[in-house]
Amino acid sequence: MLFQVRMQIIIPHDADRAIVQQLSATELALAQKFQHDGKWLHIWRVVGEWANVSIFNVDSIDELHDILTSLPLFPFMELEITPLCKHPAAVN
Amino acid sequence: MLFQVRMQIIIPHDADRAIVQQLSATELALAQKFQHDGKWLHIWRVVGEWANVSIFNVDSIDELHDILTSLPLFPFMELEITPLCKHPAAVN
Amino acid sequence: MLFQVRMQIIIPHDADRAIVQQLSATELALAQKFQHDGKWLHIWRVVGEWANVSIFNVDSIDELHDILTSLPLFPFMELEITPLCKHPAAVN
Amino acid sequence: MLFQVRMQIIIPHDADRAIVQQLSATELALAQKFQHDGKWLHIWRVVGEWANVSIFNVDSIDELHDILTSLPLFPFMELEITPLCKHPAAVN
Amino acid sequence: MLFQVRMQIIIPHDADRAIVQQLSATELALAQKFQHDGKWLHIWRVVGEWANVSIFNVDSIDELHDILTSLPLFPFMELEITPLCKHPAAVN
Amino acid sequence: MLFQVRMQIIIPHDADRAIVQQLSATELALAQKFQHDGKWLHIWRVVGEWANVSIFNVDSIDELHDILTSLPLFPFMELEITPLCKHPAAVN
Amino acid sequence: MLFQVRMQIIIPHDADRAIVQQLSATELALAQKFQHDGKWLHIWRVVGEWANVSIFNVDSIDELHDILTSLPLFPFMELEITPLCKHPAAVN
Amino acid sequence: MLFQVRMQIIIPHDADRAIVQQLSATELALAQKFQHDGKWLHIWRVVGEWANVSIFNVDSIDELHDILTSLPLFPFMELEITPLCKHPAAVN
Amino acid sequence: MLFQVRMQIIIPHDADRAIVQQLSATELALAQKFQHDGKWLHIWRVVGEWANVSIFNVDSIDELHDILTSLPLFPFMELEITPLCKHPAAVN
Amino acid sequence: MLFQVRMQIIIPHDADRAIVQQLSATELALAQKFQHDGKWLHIWRVVGEWANVSIFNVDSIDELHDILTSLPLFPFMELEITPLCKHPAAVN
Repeated sequence: MLFQVRMQIIIPHDADRAIVQQLSATELALAQKFQHDGKWLHIWRVVGEWANVSIFNVDSIDELHDILTSLPLFPFMELEITPLCKHPAAVN
Repeated sequence: MLFQVRMQIIIPHDADRAIVQQLSATELALAQKFQHDGKWLHIWRVVGEWANVSIFNVDSIDELHDILTSLPLFPFMELEITPLCKHPAAVN
Repeated sequence: MLFQVRMQIIIPHDADRAIVQQLSATELALAQKFQHDGKWLHIWRVVGEWANVSIFNVDSIDELHDILTSLPLFPFMELEITPLCKHPAAVN
Repeated sequence: MLFQVRMQIIIPHDADRAIVQQLSATELALAQKFQHDGKWLHIWRVVGEWANVSIFNVDSIDELHDILTSLPLFPFMELEITPLCKHPAAVN
Repeated sequence: MLFQVRMQIIIPHDADRAIVQQLSATELALAQKFQHDGKWLHIWRVVGEWANVSIFNVDSIDELHDILTSLPLFPFMELEITPLCKHPAAVN
Repeated sequence: MLFQVRMQIIIPHDADRAIVQQLSATELALAQKFQHDGKWLHIWRVVGEWANVSIFNVDSIDELHDILTSLPLFPFMELEITPLCKHPAAVN
Repeated sequence: MLFQVRMQIIIPHDADRAIVQQLSATELALAQKFQHDGKWLHIWRVVGEWANVSIFNVDSIDELHDILTSLPLFPFMELEITPLCKHPAAVN
Repeated sequence: MLFQVRMQIIIPHDADRAIVQQLSATELALAQKFQHDGKWLHIWRVVGEWANVSIFNVDSIDELHDILTSLPLFPFMELEITPLCKHPAAVN
Repeated sequence: MLFQVRMQIIIPHDADRAIVQQLSATELALAQKFQHDGKWLHIWRVVGEWANVSIFNVDSIDELHDILTSLPLFPFMELEITPLCKHPAAVN
Repeated sequence: MLFQVRMQIIIPHDADRAIVQQLSATELALAQKFQHDGKWLHIWRVVGEWANVSIFNVDSIDELHDILTSLPLFPFMELEITPLCKHPAAVN
């Protein structure tokens, strides 16, 4: 079951930079774990933004919710989530 | 060079349905050709819409423009185009 | 797997009214069939609009897409789709 | 008398986390009480957000106002409220 | 039970003017009937627009829906509906 | 001369609550004085919001400006102001 | 009593051009009459648009409504109306 | 060369009020100087807002930029700037 | 005096294609004339759209207005116009 | 490969002004270096805003991302990025 997720990170300018860097490092490791698990199929950086476009492959909506809310930067994210189907023109 | 493209098809209600179906068939064949050529990496249907989310891999912005404007349904499309970079957390 | 769907019907003023009424009747019968099948859990009319708020219970995103695009008035709909999870405060 | 309410919780990043957690716990208990009273018919979590979609069944607009403003997290909520009618296609 | 309703009339430029005038005349008579019945408490013209701001006093949301959809110009209206409560500062 | 005014109160979460309560009390008294003076014809609470919909009857635009800016909570308000005319369908 | 009005003219592409030109000519004459009467204080063309920014000086909101709806192109206008006061920094 | 400028002043609630008042006084004096110089032709207060609508008559875009950025409250302004032409219906 | 102009061409689907092609050809020739005259400094195609981003160098706002409204496709354009100054970091 | 970038600088009112000035000075030097390198083709100030419109000429989307995120004021920027093609009417 596929979902496109656009994650935008918005850090308040008076947040503690050391904490944010620590959260970012943990986030990167966790993002790679979810990729190795086959849950996070793709992640691309949006040019000129602290943002990414990602494709998730999950068993349920609840699983997607658990993954997203487990991310350390989740409290600083704006998310746009689009449920996806197979397209009749897709060759794969 | 990667671009995400969201294509939304909007057909006026008084358009000639036979012509639209013919354009759609040609479009499907062309979309598959661009996939086989490695230019159109992914295409997913957006649930509940005559719309798709796609990833293109092109050599230049002009090439992307030529591909998009060659699509038979292009006059009926609203397009959102997002240039993408490699993400530091991507494992592939 | 639950989705909230808001359907807004927008009929162009120069559409054939007899055809629209026929589509509406077929739509009503189909909406009741999907309710009896347990796929369409709730449907409420939005006050002052030709619109409804509905809750669907489907096995997959593709099934939701098939249901929505099978509705006779689908070409006249604007849809807003929200994937839903179980809420920790829900008593049922 | 039915109303759909979408509640979005927005906590400023420099709010006191202990106080917010305490408010959340009180909120959960109160939400369950209103469900047992038959006032709060449904509550679903919106995927990837600290938000819910709810259906309220109240005797008056004032009663809905009193319920919503009694919620401990009300000062941190953005609310969208939609009055609902019975739908002619509803089987229940 | 009070609702504020803002009605904006939008007539397509190729609509039949004679029919629109006839609908407007019927609408005016019906609006006055609902005022005499105590259902339509206030109606004001918005300056520079074919629009009004109105206050309705109804027994239920369904009654409001029935009144609004009975108006002859309803198919040409955009409606904004706001449920209202008694205000603690109101002297009446 | 009639104006509809929608007032939305937005208090920053780190404002001094005691001061805000004091301003609110003064505001309530002033709102009642303007009602007794016949300047503030109606005030209704918008459900689920710290907001109201009001109708003012003033001699000039400057008088309306003076009334609104004299309100103690004015610095925390977002205002939408709509000039109103007599409606041809109004029975009063 | 001053109002700023922004008028945007939007002509459907299938409107009768001869009629529109005739309406425009009548409109120009009427706009000059209202200027000579001291009701229409200023009119400026917005660059690159069939639009103007105007200042009206009227005795009442109803008078402004009557002037605007008397304009031959009114059915093709989108209007934005802003009530204005004297500014404390104005030297005139 | 004429430009319409709409200036909206937005003061953060935790700004130093004494400094803001001092800036406002300096701003008022400067606004009057630019009026006497013939650069700032008109200034009107927008009802119910800390905002104005102004007309500037300048020799170049750079001159307009220098005037606007010299205003003491410029860091607290949101500006909308519209280049204006002579209108064919203008009698002056 | 520099202005950035974004031109978006929107052709109604039932417009006469032969006329539109003729207008486009005339437009291209005129755009090149204005470039040779030094009035139209730059023109770039926006990827995936019938739109361009252009820079104009004109003597007055009225000259810009005359150029834009002389373009054959002007009735089908949506324009966004941004007045530009010299930037302190510009090396040319 | 050309991109138009609109950069808007938004400095929180409680930021350290000395630091911001230092970042601005470094930014100016870096902007000039990228211009001398032929990467930053044009930069214009938007009138009345701490904003610029720029044209970049880069070898890849990743190079554009690296340039933009290397700017000292990047954390305070809102960016709009538009990929550009050669226009058929361009004479150069």
